[in-house]
Amino acid sequence: MNKIRLGIVGGGGDSLIGVLHRIASQMFDSYEIVGGVFNPNWEENIGFAKEIGLKTDRVYKNFDALIEEENKKSKDERMQAVSVLTPNFLHFPMAKKLLENNFNVICEKPLTTTYAEAQELEKIQKEKKVVFAVTYTYTGYPMVRQMRQMIIDREIGEIQKVDIQYYQGWINPVIHDKEKRSTTWRLQPEKSGISCCMGDIGTHAFNMLEYVTGMKVSSLLSDLNYVYDDNPMDVDGTILIRFSDKIKGVIRTSQIATGEENNITVAIYGSKGAIKWQQENPNFITLLLENEPKKILTPGHLYNSKNSLDITKLPPGHPEGIFDSMGNIYKGVAKAILNKNPIAGEYPTLEEGARGMLFIEKVVESHSSGNTWVSL
Amino acid sequence: MNKIRLGIVGGGGDSLIGVLHRIASQMFDSYEIVGGVFNPNWEENIGFAKEIGLKTDRVYKNFDALIEEENKKSKDERMQAVSVLTPNFLHFPMAKKLLENNFNVICEKPLTTTYAEAQELEKIQKEKKVVFAVTYTYTGYPMVRQMRQMIIDREIGEIQKVDIQYYQGWINPVIHDKEKRSTTWRLQPEKSGISCCMGDIGTHAFNMLEYVTGMKVSSLLSDLNYVYDDNPMDVDGTILIRFSDKIKGVIRTSQIATGEENNITVAIYGSKGAIKWQQENPNFITLLLENEPKKILTPGHLYNSKNSLDITKLPPGHPEGIFDSMGNIYKGVAKAILNKNPIAGEYPTLEEGARGMLFIEKVVESHSSGNTWVSL
Amino acid sequence: MNKIRLGIVGGGGDSLIGVLHRIASQMFDSYEIVGGVFNPNWEENIGFAKEIGLKTDRVYKNFDALIEEENKKSKDERMQAVSVLTPNFLHFPMAKKLLENNFNVICEKPLTTTYAEAQELEKIQKEKKVVFAVTYTYTGYPMVRQMRQMIIDREIGEIQKVDIQYYQGWINPVIHDKEKRSTTWRLQPEKSGISCCMGDIGTHAFNMLEYVTGMKVSSLLSDLNYVYDDNPMDVDGTILIRFSDKIKGVIRTSQIATGEENNITVAIYGSKGAIKWQQENPNFITLLLENEPKKILTPGHLYNSKNSLDITKLPPGHPEGIFDSMGNIYKGVAKAILNKNPIAGEYPTLEEGARGMLFIEKVVESHSSGNTWVSL
Amino acid sequence: MNKIRLGIVGGGGDSLIGVLHRIASQMFDSYEIVGGVFNPNWEENIGFAKEIGLKTDRVYKNFDALIEEENKKSKDERMQAVSVLTPNFLHFPMAKKLLENNFNVICEKPLTTTYAEAQELEKIQKEKKVVFAVTYTYTGYPMVRQMRQMIIDREIGEIQKVDIQYYQGWINPVIHDKEKRSTTWRLQPEKSGISCCMGDIGTHAFNMLEYVTGMKVSSLLSDLNYVYDDNPMDVDGTILIRFSDKIKGVIRTSQIATGEENNITVAIYGSKGAIKWQQENPNFITLLLENEPKKILTPGHLYNSKNSLDITKLPPGHPEGIFDSMGNIYKGVAKAILNKNPIAGEYPTLEEGARGMLFIEKVVESHSSGNTWVSL
Repeated sequence: MNKIRLGIVGGGGDSLIGVLHRIASQMFDSYEIVGGVFNPNWEENIGFAKEIGLKTDRVYKNFDALIEEENKKSKDERMQAVSVLTPNFLHFPMAKKLLENNFNVICEKPLTTTYAEAQELEKIQKEKKVVFAVTYTYTGYPMVRQMRQMIIDREIGEIQKVDIQYYQGWINPVIHDKEKRSTTWRLQPEKSGISCCMGDIGTHAFNMLEYVTGMKVSSLLSDLNYVYDDNPMDVDGTILIRFSDKIKGVIRTSQIATGEENNITVAIYGSKGAIKWQQENPNFITLLLENEPKKILTPGHLYNSKNSLDITKLPPGHPEGIFDSMGNIYKGVAKAILNKNPIAGEYPTLEEGARGMLFIEKVVESHSSGNTWVSL
Repeated sequence: MNKIRLGIVGGGGDSLIGVLHRIASQMFDSYEIVGGVFNPNWEENIGFAKEIGLKTDRVYKNFDALIEEENKKSKDERMQAVSVLTPNFLHFPMAKKLLENNFNVICEKPLTTTYAEAQELEKIQKEKKVVFAVTYTYTGYPMVRQMRQMIIDREIGEIQKVDIQYYQGWINPVIHDKEKRSTTWRLQPEKSGISCCMGDIGTHAFNMLEYVTGMKVSSLLSDLNYVYDDNPMDVDGTILIRFSDKIKGVIRTSQIATGEENNITVAIYGSKGAIKWQQENPNFITLLLENEPKKILTPGHLYNSKNSLDITKLPPGHPEGIFDSMGNIYKGVAKAILNKNPIAGEYPTLEEGARGMLFIEKVVESHSSGNTWVSL
Repeated sequence: MNKIRLGIVGGGGDSLIGVLHRIASQMFDSYEIVGGVFNPNWEENIGFAKEIGLKTDRVYKNFDALIEEENKKSKDERMQAVSVLTPNFLHFPMAKKLLENNFNVICEKPLTTTYAEAQELEKIQKEKKVVFAVTYTYTGYPMVRQMRQMIIDREIGEIQKVDIQYYQGWINPVIHDKEKRSTTWRLQPEKSGISCCMGDIGTHAFNMLEYVTGMKVSSLLSDLNYVYDDNPMDVDGTILIRFSDKIKGVIRTSQIATGEENNITVAIYGSKGAIKWQQENPNFITLLLENEPKKILTPGHLYNSKNSLDITKLPPGHPEGIFDSMGNIYKGVAKAILNKNPIAGEYPTLEEGARGMLFIEKVVESHSSGNTWVSL
Repeated sequence: MNKIRLGIVGGGGDSLIGVLHRIASQMFDSYEIVGGVFNPNWEENIGFAKEIGLKTDRVYKNFDALIEEENKKSKDERMQAVSVLTPNFLHFPMAKKLLENNFNVICEKPLTTTYAEAQELEKIQKEKKVVFAVTYTYTGYPMVRQMRQMIIDREIGEIQKVDIQYYQGWINPVIHDKEKRSTTWRLQPEKSGISCCMGDIGTHAFNMLEYVTGMKVSSLLSDLNYVYDDNPMDVDGTILIRFSDKIKGVIRTSQIATGEENNITVAIYGSKGAIKWQQENPNFITLLLENEPKKILTPGHLYNSKNSLDITKLPPGHPEGIFDSMGNIYKGVAKAILNKNPIAGEYPTLEEGARGMLFIEKVVESHSSGNTWVSL
């Protein structure tokens, strides 16, 4: 049995993120879920473990017990990686302890609640040399990987303009109801940190931008919207960004874009052409080259980039979805854990998670200081 | 552990159908793959089992050994279901033996090589009362289930016209090359039965039509295309169909629709409106109602039918793909095996598999007899 | 003034076809509408002429008066062309008389009510050598012209499969109402000839097929649907067609495709690729070439064919519509009338109109004779 | 003859704007082009007039001659309206003189070169009470009118977020070529005023936003891109906008969005839903209402708003294009000139043209002052 022994913390009950990670981890026969802590309540914890068909000997009362008991096991028995699917504020203490105890870590985003915490994790990882992935799910789609490769290979020339959108509408019915907006945890700073919209989806948009361009945003200016005076959390925001004085763009995010489901769009314009992608139709990218017909690329073809073909499971015309996308991230992590020559971009790194935290803080800083430019 | 013990026959090496079934079976924590026969060659068989992380104690030399050894096991140990992923001509003997030995069966399509064989399986199943599923993969998409429910609920009124397309282009480079067309197994009657295009994709189209309408085609008239005189197998065909003298339609299939990937489209027109779906964008259906705006439905909403919500894993905007579709079929089979009140349409039945075989024979008969009407 | 002096017969009041022809004729500064007979009722006729800003000296009481009076005028005064927009059964006698009197003719489709009449017109035209256009409107779109050129230039190789659709839903509310279906003129043979669906839209589909391929259909087999026994006219039909024993396809037409507006689609598959177009998004064609990304072509680019650029008025991104399409046909007719080197395909000819009549008769013959093959 | 006597200044030769206005003015039988000044060169001027089939008696040597001679004519002879299609810097002096001489004016955008000039025109118009239209072409599409009506009727509730895009790529090949960028008139301040991208397309986007919402932008913050230090003109810019402290949005414009044709998109989000439109597919709007399927509206239906039905010429499924859109603006102007109860929104007014000039100046001011908020 050469499967990686995986533990999971959080994600029990009817957690959606739990389903996503469990299915993703099983996709490529690379992981075996051996145990974890799925729920703070013991009855629910053990009940859930049985429900998903786990043996219960490695289902632990709590996170500390997991660390303690797993540490007692031999190298061939011990969990090799742990997925952290708990509420945001628990990411940092758990990830830290896992790092300190030499576990490979797969952590949901946002990585932590502050950039300082993220930096601390980076520091520890450097010593420990374990694998640490932050699950920016959308970077696992074959056509996002393809897009990244084409941009890095300069198929659209030098980048000169970028435009990323992440629009949802789910907060609309919450925000206009005084009662609901005061009780939703996403809108409570003590539970969600300093930002709602930026922390939840702005980070995805920001990561996507840096992921597909292979470049770092140098400065930003943001305008957030809180809609009501009694609401302490942003639910919408537009962020002007600059890679340099000559390369500019915009990140547009909203949770009050009523009626939108999960509408992420990417448009990167270069000196030779452009490339565009939409999450709700993830198996297509549009390539615009000057004076040529518009081109639609799909996965599984001879013309696809190696990094997309590596993660395309079936021939053209067999659509993949978000479970496949997360599965591809788990696949990349497995390669890294097993030292099978992972290449850049196969899974989102701790550094990317930390950049996301920096982004959140800088966006809020820019807005609070009267919509001024801040450097990253 | 309450997982169904699953065996797999075929699907080893880099078999695409193998990947599809393995991932699908793991999606809902309902099955544990306990063994099987993945490859006729023992080295490859055992090697593959290890590669996918299986214990090798229930990896068998051949199909007969599987039956024999599993029969020796206790009720709590024995495989409960076996997935048959072998070449078409092996479906019948294997499925028959599995039925006779009281295994639940999940069989790839086309079910058999003749309708007579299919009828024989039906006869045995009636005695044995096990579950038998035929994996018409595309019926597992949430929006196909939704479409079926809406049509059955007469949201578009009484059906008056149907139009189903299944266009691929993959045989184009084969058919025009004399050498290739004589060596491709799909074009060899001894390996593929009496039809290439109808057997491979026509059956899918036909099943989809009867699945979403809940009605039975009563007669058909076909025109097939073999393109070259030395080619014994159809690679394209249009089939006029009738549900009755007043309810007509067409099934259009091709493997020489050059450039098409896997372009299945469904359009069902009724007395109040119409409903349309496309496999390459499977998370959308279009509803046309007279004098109303066109409507686009997606999964996961309050407005969705129960049978689609039951198999939608995430909120709106998180696209599912073909692995999820097959996973939903495995989920339906699991409900049937565990007697958890499966409802009609949760998995494609043996009867549907047999109808598919009848369809193939009738289409070839109609064509051979000079494009005349034949009854089903 | 070098404008062609145009007369119009029919198309008064709130006639939609009248608006279409008037606007189309004015698009390229090529025609001046000098008079005509817009309405059988004199008051309405003269009133309408004033309403559209015409001088009334050449508004005639009836068609015969028009011929008589125009014949008296000098060569420099006389109408050069007459557009025939009257009900179908009047097309033949009027077109005939116009031909006999040496007028160029622009006639709505269907050309006549029988193929014999169409042949008679062809015979006269051969003697008279005037220009005769039949307004198959959809062939005037730049991207239809582009498609034709690319197919003729064999950019998709040798044609091997064709599929044309023309689906509308407008008869649905009529057909199910006994009163309505007995009083609608389209469903009365004495007014509409032998066919409703084939005569009205089937001809368009058939013409489009022969227009874009540059080939002639050699035989067909049809299945029509009349839906009710008391309804004498087809409202739906699928037609298997063959260019040869090896090149086959289908024409699908319906007026009971409930909810469809004017959904014409063209898909032509060749040995190298395919080309597809949809009337409701007329400014795009899709080109599929094996092993290449799908390509979307739009008008006005360097890569466009000459025959599409000739009729594209603005740079890329400025959508044209159906008025522009009809305008392009009028432009082609003007080139022919003025002997400005018209090229094949710039307007639909009398021969194309006659082929359309032959098609209608053959489709009904095939259906009536029990869905058998008939030659064209 | 009840047609409005129209003169045209500019638009000769192969001017694209000339074709657009001529065709548009003829669409509804409302105008007769009686003369004008098409070209500063007399030979070309008179030649062009003949080419488009005009009598030459009212083709004038220059603009002053036009005013002088037309003023001599009787009320029943004199031009009633003049379309100004000359280079931008001539709009103001010509429009001013036309106003002073009591002509109705149809003027291309941008209205003038400074806001001060625009205000001067407004002042004169108030005295003269003639009709003055500024041809923001895109507001003439039936589905833009529909969108406006639905938003004003609060079908999507109270507006809470807006997002307008106008992306083109045409300057890309110019901007990277030192020679070209110094010789293109759009990039020369003396010819184009203070802005390239904002003046040419930003004004369209801004007008569209205020047109469809019926609201006024209160402040903005812009970030422009000049790409090269030696380039004095913006070719790209993102503008944060606010209707109020709680209602925010963004206008995104670019001429270096390589590969884009004329990609205008509108997305308006309200408390109940959203509405979206795209210029390159102008006959569709998407309506998103919470918990309902997405809806696609097209023109010509019973469900359409009166202001869209008024300008839809054919039944559903017959696409209209940009010539029709401009034609609808001319139709609105004709109603105003003839006092036929024009309603708000039937043509873009002088006030809207002036708002556009204010917008340009404010965007440049915001950028120049370090990306700060400025009020409108």
